[in-house]
Amino acid sequence: METDKMMVRPVITLLTDFGKIYPAMMKGKILSGCPEALIIDMTHEIPAGNISAGSLVLSQCASAFPEKTIHVAVVDPGVGSSRKALLIRCRGPDRYFIGPDNGLLVRASFGDAGGTDLSGIVPASDRRSGDIPDVFVIDESLPLFGNSSKTFHGRDIFAPAAAALANGCFPEDLGKRIDPAGIVRPPVSENIIEGSLSGEDGIVIRTTVLLTDDFGNMITSLPYEALYDKTGFSGQENLTAEIGQDDEEKDAGNPEQEKTGKKDAEKKKTDKKKAEKIKAKIVGTYSEAARGTPVLLKGSFGTLEFAVTEGSAKKYSEERGFRTEDGCRLTIRITEKRTDEEQAEQETNG
Amino acid sequence: METDKMMVRPVITLLTDFGKIYPAMMKGKILSGCPEALIIDMTHEIPAGNISAGSLVLSQCASAFPEKTIHVAVVDPGVGSSRKALLIRCRGPDRYFIGPDNGLLVRASFGDAGGTDLSGIVPASDRRSGDIPDVFVIDESLPLFGNSSKTFHGRDIFAPAAAALANGCFPEDLGKRIDPAGIVRPPVSENIIEGSLSGEDGIVIRTTVLLTDDFGNMITSLPYEALYDKTGFSGQENLTAEIGQDDEEKDAGNPEQEKTGKKDAEKKKTDKKKAEKIKAKIVGTYSEAARGTPVLLKGSFGTLEFAVTEGSAKKYSEERGFRTEDGCRLTIRITEKRTDEEQAEQETNG
Amino acid sequence: METDKMMVRPVITLLTDFGKIYPAMMKGKILSGCPEALIIDMTHEIPAGNISAGSLVLSQCASAFPEKTIHVAVVDPGVGSSRKALLIRCRGPDRYFIGPDNGLLVRASFGDAGGTDLSGIVPASDRRSGDIPDVFVIDESLPLFGNSSKTFHGRDIFAPAAAALANGCFPEDLGKRIDPAGIVRPPVSENIIEGSLSGEDGIVIRTTVLLTDDFGNMITSLPYEALYDKTGFSGQENLTAEIGQDDEEKDAGNPEQEKTGKKDAEKKKTDKKKAEKIKAKIVGTYSEAARGTPVLLKGSFGTLEFAVTEGSAKKYSEERGFRTEDGCRLTIRITEKRTDEEQAEQETNG
Repeated sequence: METDKMMVRPVITLLTDFGKIYPAMMKGKILSGCPEALIIDMTHEIPAGNISAGSLVLSQCASAFPEKTIHVAVVDPGVGSSRKALLIRCRGPDRYFIGPDNGLLVRASFGDAGGTDLSGIVPASDRRSGDIPDVFVIDESLPLFGNSSKTFHGRDIFAPAAAALANGCFPEDLGKRIDPAGIVRPPVSENIIEGSLSGEDGIVIRTTVLLTDDFGNMITSLPYEALYDKTGFSGQENLTAEIGQDDEEKDAGNPEQEKTGKKDAEKKKTDKKKAEKIKAKIVGTYSEAARGTPVLLKGSFGTLEFAVTEGSAKKYSEERGFRTEDGCRLTIRITEKRTDEEQAEQETNG
Repeated sequence: METDKMMVRPVITLLTDFGKIYPAMMKGKILSGCPEALIIDMTHEIPAGNISAGSLVLSQCASAFPEKTIHVAVVDPGVGSSRKALLIRCRGPDRYFIGPDNGLLVRASFGDAGGTDLSGIVPASDRRSGDIPDVFVIDESLPLFGNSSKTFHGRDIFAPAAAALANGCFPEDLGKRIDPAGIVRPPVSENIIEGSLSGEDGIVIRTTVLLTDDFGNMITSLPYEALYDKTGFSGQENLTAEIGQDDEEKDAGNPEQEKTGKKDAEKKKTDKKKAEKIKAKIVGTYSEAARGTPVLLKGSFGTLEFAVTEGSAKKYSEERGFRTEDGCRLTIRITEKRTDEEQAEQETNG
Repeated sequence: METDKMMVRPVITLLTDFGKIYPAMMKGKILSGCPEALIIDMTHEIPAGNISAGSLVLSQCASAFPEKTIHVAVVDPGVGSSRKALLIRCRGPDRYFIGPDNGLLVRASFGDAGGTDLSGIVPASDRRSGDIPDVFVIDESLPLFGNSSKTFHGRDIFAPAAAALANGCFPEDLGKRIDPAGIVRPPVSENIIEGSLSGEDGIVIRTTVLLTDDFGNMITSLPYEALYDKTGFSGQENLTAEIGQDDEEKDAGNPEQEKTGKKDAEKKKTDKKKAEKIKAKIVGTYSEAARGTPVLLKGSFGTLEFAVTEGSAKKYSEERGFRTEDGCRLTIRITEKRTDEEQAEQETNG
C-alpha cells in the first residue's frame, strides 16, 4: 500500500561561520517556510570569514548527501554590501547551493569544470565532467524576503530561498540566470610541488593549512592526488618527510598580531627564529605509527594532512615554534627511505 | 490526494546552557514521549546560568519559528530548589514556552504586555499587543514525570512535558493555571540614555553586554529602537562614537576574579587603570567600514551591537584594557559628525 | 483513518569525538542510505580518544531513547588498524549499537551482564538482567561499504551500516555473529572505597575524573550507588568531605606535559607541591548550598560529581593547585558532621 512508504522530506543543510547563537534563526525561518524540511547542520564552526576553509568543507561534505539536497552556505564577510546572493543548480547528481557570491559555493558546485579555472585547488576526485551548473542571482526584492536586514542574509535571504526551493519553487522564480563565468572565484591557496623522489632534494611541497580540526590535525589545501600526479609519489613508499616553516612565510601570516603591545612584540621576535623542523612519517592511516608520532597522510577531505597520532599536530607544532593559525604555510620535504629502526618501530605499533 | 500532503510534525526547540553532553538526554526523553517530534537545537551554549542572555536569545529566535512551536528553555541555576516549573501558552501567534520560573521565559512570551513591567528591556519590535499569555505551573507529581531527579529537570520534567504537549495534551492537564503577575521577572539590565545630538555632550548611553557571539561581536541589552525613541537618532547620521568603560563599572563586574593569587592581583591593579577610549563608526552593516574598524550597529538581536569589521570586538577591547565578560558595562558617547577623511575612507571600502 | 497516524521514522544517534567538521559526512551518508532516518546528535565532543568518557556518556544517554534506536558511537583511535567493527543487538528494550571494538559500546549494551566482568565500573542502575546481547562483526568487504577509507570508518563503515539497519536489514546480513566474550573490554577506572563513617578516618574514596562538563562539573567514574552499597552512606547525612589530590596520583597523569619547555618545567615543579585540600558539602542538588560552595552530589550520569554551585569546579580546583585533565584522580574523605554554622548557612540559601 502506497501510504506505507514514508515520503522523503526535502533535505536542507546549513554550513556557516555563525557559531552557536544565530543558526536557530535560520532554522526557524526555514521551518516557517517549509515545515516538512529536514534541516541538517553541516557545521556552524567554519573559522570566521574563512572562505577557503568553508569552501573545502562544503565541497567534501556535500558529496556525501543524497540527490536533491539543498545546501545553504554562509561565510559572508561582505554581507550588506553589493555582493550578490547566488542559487546554483547542479545536475548529475542534482543538488542546489545557496549562498553569497564570494567564491564559497564554487568548489562544491563546479569542481573545476564550468569555465572557472580551478586547477590546482580542486582535487581530481572532485572534478565533474557533467553539465555546467546553472547560476541564478537571487532577487532580494521579492516579497518572499520581506523587509530583510542588512546584517543577516542567512536568516533573511538564504533561509527563505531554501525553503521556497524545498517547497517546489523553481530557481527561475527566485532570480535571474546569469553567465557562470561572471561569478566570484574562490581565494586561491598556492600549492607548489617541486623536485622528485629521485632528485637530490627530493620532493619539496609548499602548501597552506586551510583549517585545523578538533583533533588538532592540520588540513592543507594540497589535493593528495596532485602529489601523485606531479611526482608519481603514491604515499605508499614508507618514507619520512621534514616539515618546516620559513620566516618569510610566517611573517606573511597574521596581521592581527600587529596590534598587540610590547610584551607580545618581544614574543614575536622569538617566534621569528626559524621553527624547528618536524620529522613526520608518511602513512596510510593514523594507527600505522606509534602514539605521539608526527605523520602525513591523505585526510578525510582528500588533501594532505599533518597529524600526530593520538595527539595534536597543532600543539606539537606550536611547541616547536611553528605558527599554526588557519592560512599558515608549511614547507614539506620528502627525501629519504625510512631507517630500519623506524621501520621496526612501525611494525611493532602498526 | 490527501496522503500526498506530508503531515507536519510538532516542532520542539531546545535552548539551554547545558553545553555538549546533556542535551542528548532531553532529546531521547522527548522522542520516547513523542516519536513524531521534530527537535531543533536552538542553542546549548547560553553562558552558564546567564538568564539575561538566555532570555534575549530565546525571545529573538522563537519569533522566527512557525506557529504551534513548543520552546523548551533551561537556564536554571535554581534547579532542585522550590522554584516552579512553568508552561506558558501564547496566542496570536500560538506557541508554547516551557522552563523554570526564573524570568527566562518572560521576554519571549510576554514582550512587555501582560502586566509585567518590562519597559526598557524589551525592544519595541517585540512588544505584543495580543492576548495575555496563559501561565501554568507544571505539576511535578504527575505520573508522567516518574521518579524525577533533583538536578536535571531539563530531562526529567521539561522534556516529558514538551513531549506530552506535542502529543496533543492540554496545558490544563499538565498543571494549574496561575495569575501571570505572580511569575518571576527577568533580571533587569539597566540602560541609560541621556543627552541629545545637539547637546554639548551629545548622547550618552550606559548599557550592558549581554553576551558576545562567536565572531567576538558584543551584544548589548539596549534596544536599538529605544535609542531612536529617546533621542531621535536614527543610526543613519554617519557619526562616530566613543566607547569607554569606567573604573566603577569595571569593579562591579566579576567576583570570580577575587579568588586568584598574587600575580593576578597585580595584573588586576593594572587592569584598574582607565581603559582607553575606542572610537567607533555608526553603521548600518559591517561592510560599510574598512576591515578592522570598530563599529556600532543594530545587531541581529535588534539591540545595539559593538563589532570590529572582519575582526573581534572582544579581542580588540581586551587589548585596550576593557573588561569584556558577559554582564560588563559600556559607556557610549555619540557626539561628532564623521570627519571628511573618515568619510572618504568609508566610501573607498563600502 | 490509518494515514492520519504519522509513521515513526527510524532514529539513529551519533556519539563521536569528531568535533565540528566531520559529523556532517556521516549524516550525509546515513541520509543517502536511508532518507527516512531521524538523525540525532548525541554529542560530537567526547574528549579526543577518550573511550572511558565516551562509554559513560553513551550508556547514560542511550537509556533515554526509545526502543529500536540505532546508536552509532565512534571514539576510535585505532581506526585503520585491524580492530573490528561491531554491531550489537540488545533486546528488552530492543536497541542497536554500532562502533569500533575497543570497549566503547560495552557498558551501554551489556551493563555488567553477559559474561563481561564490568563490576565496579557500571552503576547498579545500569545492570541489565535481560538477554545477553548478540554481537556481530561487520563485514567490511560488503559491497555496501564500497571503497572505504582507512581513516574515516565513521563515514565509510558505521554510517552505511546504520542506514542499512534502519532500512530493515538484519544484523545477520551485515556480518558474522561472534561470542560476546571475545570483544574488547572498556578501560577500567579504578574506584577504591575504604573505611566507614563510624571509623576513625571515615570513608576514603579514590576515583577518576572521567570528564568535565561545560559547567566545569567534574564527573567521576564512581557509581553513586556503589558508595551506598559499600558504606551504607546514602548521601543524605548532611556531611562535609575533603577532596585532595596526591602527588603520586598527579604524576601518573598526563604524559603530554613532558614535552614543554623550561618555563613550563618550572611551573610543573610548583604544581608538584601537594594541592590544597578542598572542603565540599555533600548535597542532593546544587541549590542546597550557597553560591560558590564546593559540593559533591549524584550527578546526571549517576556517578559522584564534584561541582561548585553556580561556578566551575574545574576552575576552582585549578586555582588550588589541582590537576583537572580528564583521567586525573581525586581522593575524597568523608568524615565529619557539618558544623552548626554551615548548617545555618545552608538553610539560609537552600
